Amino acid sequence: MKGKHNFSAGPAILPAEVIQEAAAGVLNINNTGLSILEVSHRDKDFMAIMEEARSLVLELMGLGSEYKVLFLGGGASLQFAMVPSNLLVTGGTAAYLDTGVWAHKAIKEAKMVGNINIVGSSEKEKYNHIPKNFTIPTDANYLHITSNNTIYGTQMHHFPDSPIPVVCDMSSDIFSRKMDFNKFDLIYAGAQKNMGAAGATMVVVKESILGKTGRKMFSMLDYQVHIKGESMYNTPPVFSVYVCLLTMKWLKKNGGLAWIEEINRKKAEAMYAEIDRNSLFTGTVVKEDRSWMNATFLLTKPELEETFNKMWKEAGIVGIKGHRDVGGYRASMYNALTIEDVNALVGVMKELEKKNG
Amino acid sequence: MKGKHNFSAGPAILPAEVIQEAAAGVLNINNTGLSILEVSHRDKDFMAIMEEARSLVLELMGLGSEYKVLFLGGGASLQFAMVPSNLLVTGGTAAYLDTGVWAHKAIKEAKMVGNINIVGSSEKEKYNHIPKNFTIPTDANYLHITSNNTIYGTQMHHFPDSPIPVVCDMSSDIFSRKMDFNKFDLIYAGAQKNMGAAGATMVVVKESILGKTGRKMFSMLDYQVHIKGESMYNTPPVFSVYVCLLTMKWLKKNGGLAWIEEINRKKAEAMYAEIDRNSLFTGTVVKEDRSWMNATFLLTKPELEETFNKMWKEAGIVGIKGHRDVGGYRASMYNALTIEDVNALVGVMKELEKKNG
Repeated sequence: MKGKHNFSAGPAILPAEVIQEAAAGVLNINNTGLSILEVSHRDKDFMAIMEEARSLVLELMGLGSEYKVLFLGGGASLQFAMVPSNLLVTGGTAAYLDTGVWAHKAIKEAKMVGNINIVGSSEKEKYNHIPKNFTIPTDANYLHITSNNTIYGTQMHHFPDSPIPVVCDMSSDIFSRKMDFNKFDLIYAGAQKNMGAAGATMVVVKESILGKTGRKMFSMLDYQVHIKGESMYNTPPVFSVYVCLLTMKWLKKNGGLAWIEEINRKKAEAMYAEIDRNSLFTGTVVKEDRSWMNATFLLTKPELEETFNKMWKEAGIVGIKGHRDVGGYRASMYNALTIEDVNALVGVMKELEKKNG
Repeated sequence: MKGKHNFSAGPAILPAEVIQEAAAGVLNINNTGLSILEVSHRDKDFMAIMEEARSLVLELMGLGSEYKVLFLGGGASLQFAMVPSNLLVTGGTAAYLDTGVWAHKAIKEAKMVGNINIVGSSEKEKYNHIPKNFTIPTDANYLHITSNNTIYGTQMHHFPDSPIPVVCDMSSDIFSRKMDFNKFDLIYAGAQKNMGAAGATMVVVKESILGKTGRKMFSMLDYQVHIKGESMYNTPPVFSVYVCLLTMKWLKKNGGLAWIEEINRKKAEAMYAEIDRNSLFTGTVVKEDRSWMNATFLLTKPELEETFNKMWKEAGIVGIKGHRDVGGYRASMYNALTIEDVNALVGVMKELEKKNG
């Protein structure tokens, strides 16, 4: 992997040793002489992988057994449908915070199930901040928030105390920092950013909030069905779950969320310091809501675009083109990205200024 | 992988060269210096993989562009919900053929959407045959069938001419034989048997049958949403799609469905010949409906179970324990299993007879 600095927004960079172990497992899992792709999900080899992955999620998050962990297929987008199906009582209301395209999509799906109260939105300001001082309606069934907004580069750095269950889409900043995870009743995250390979979605849910809607729903959408099946109601996304396990083991071995938080803080500080210092660049979101995961920025002299693009590509940098909704650049700095990768990008930005400032 | 004969029912054996290439792609895809797990699904490298996979499906099946190909997450079990959601008109009826546990589950989910007419069932005979001479109601919206029943070891060797659209769950015999795929309007298959790695489900659908129900449904359940998004409405199960592509390329390179059909025929003939010849074994299903993919059989002297189990395990055979609903043994002989693997099992069966017959 030498020479590449992978800032892709997702699927995204994974630790080099995880990649190596994943490839080894494709060839021969647990010295069985069989590929991880070829073993039954009911075999003891994979059952142990699934079990360890589920336990490690709770361990890393500091959660107790009142929470259940699932690894499901279908992506976080399927959770946009599953959350209201499982939690929104007929005739009831759910509260949503609208912080970007993904929150917006979650709202759209939830509206098919019941009444939605949008308690705050930054849509008019092109999602350049996280709405604050919103009121959580005490009679809503749950509050849905998105902890990090990949496209816009905003992140929630404070979470409200809530009188109602809180559901959080952590797809793009899962396992990136210490948090009091007990503040949440349901957490979901697509695996393909900080956690593993695309194809699996993790759901952590406090079992006591389920089974209250009286709604009949498809088995595959029903959290209680998946909990009863211990995340094996049907064939799970075997390899993706395995990569999640490897990534979580890497995280635990090195010091867990406290360790990675420090690294992520340093990366974000280095990145934003350069965006603020360098006259050729400007950040796109309000400073207090800047994401540690996705730094979004624009060139102040758009005529330098071609020059800059050539320079970062030559430096082995990959994936910093901004999302089409925002334009400019987006440097995604997920867990596996190193401070050296960030320094490589900062170096190119400095060089651009030296030559064109 | 030397020395192992992998008869697992799924996830199941894959061609050795596919395993090698998949592992290589985990380390470095297309010589980009990046893992297939780390590249954006919007990057040209993965876009090309998805596009080639979708084209190859149509090519192998001999289907034209009126059919659309999708690779979705969630497993075939999610299709049990998507099929009626997309095809069953409000107030209408769908016809289902009940040939086993999976067909039964598909019926259960479809009943949440509308009226279901079970046109034939072998449930009372423990699914030991495929119901025949059933009438297809001309006023039903579609007929749903399951081409191969993994648990019971039955397979449809003839398909009815149908006056209404035919939906077929081909999860456990996809790409195993030549067929007139034009007889079907919607085909779906979980990847984890003949096609690739668990986590992706292939859907091939004639676009003209869609959009007729007037039903609002979740975006993730809507085939038209996925078609519009060219199977990238959300992040697809990247690695599983890649393994599907590798397996299909292996199939095409060697001669396609005509080639694999001959191999599968020989394997099935060798297996069933021994089950019928050997006085210690008996097949569990009627001969005309025997599956080429999953041969199910019992010991005629159950007291030999421990001896037999010890013998096949020592011979490097894996995964022939029968499903808990049927008991006995199940030898799954998917595409990548060789005639030598079958001969290894047949050899053990002969040896058991020699010592205990």
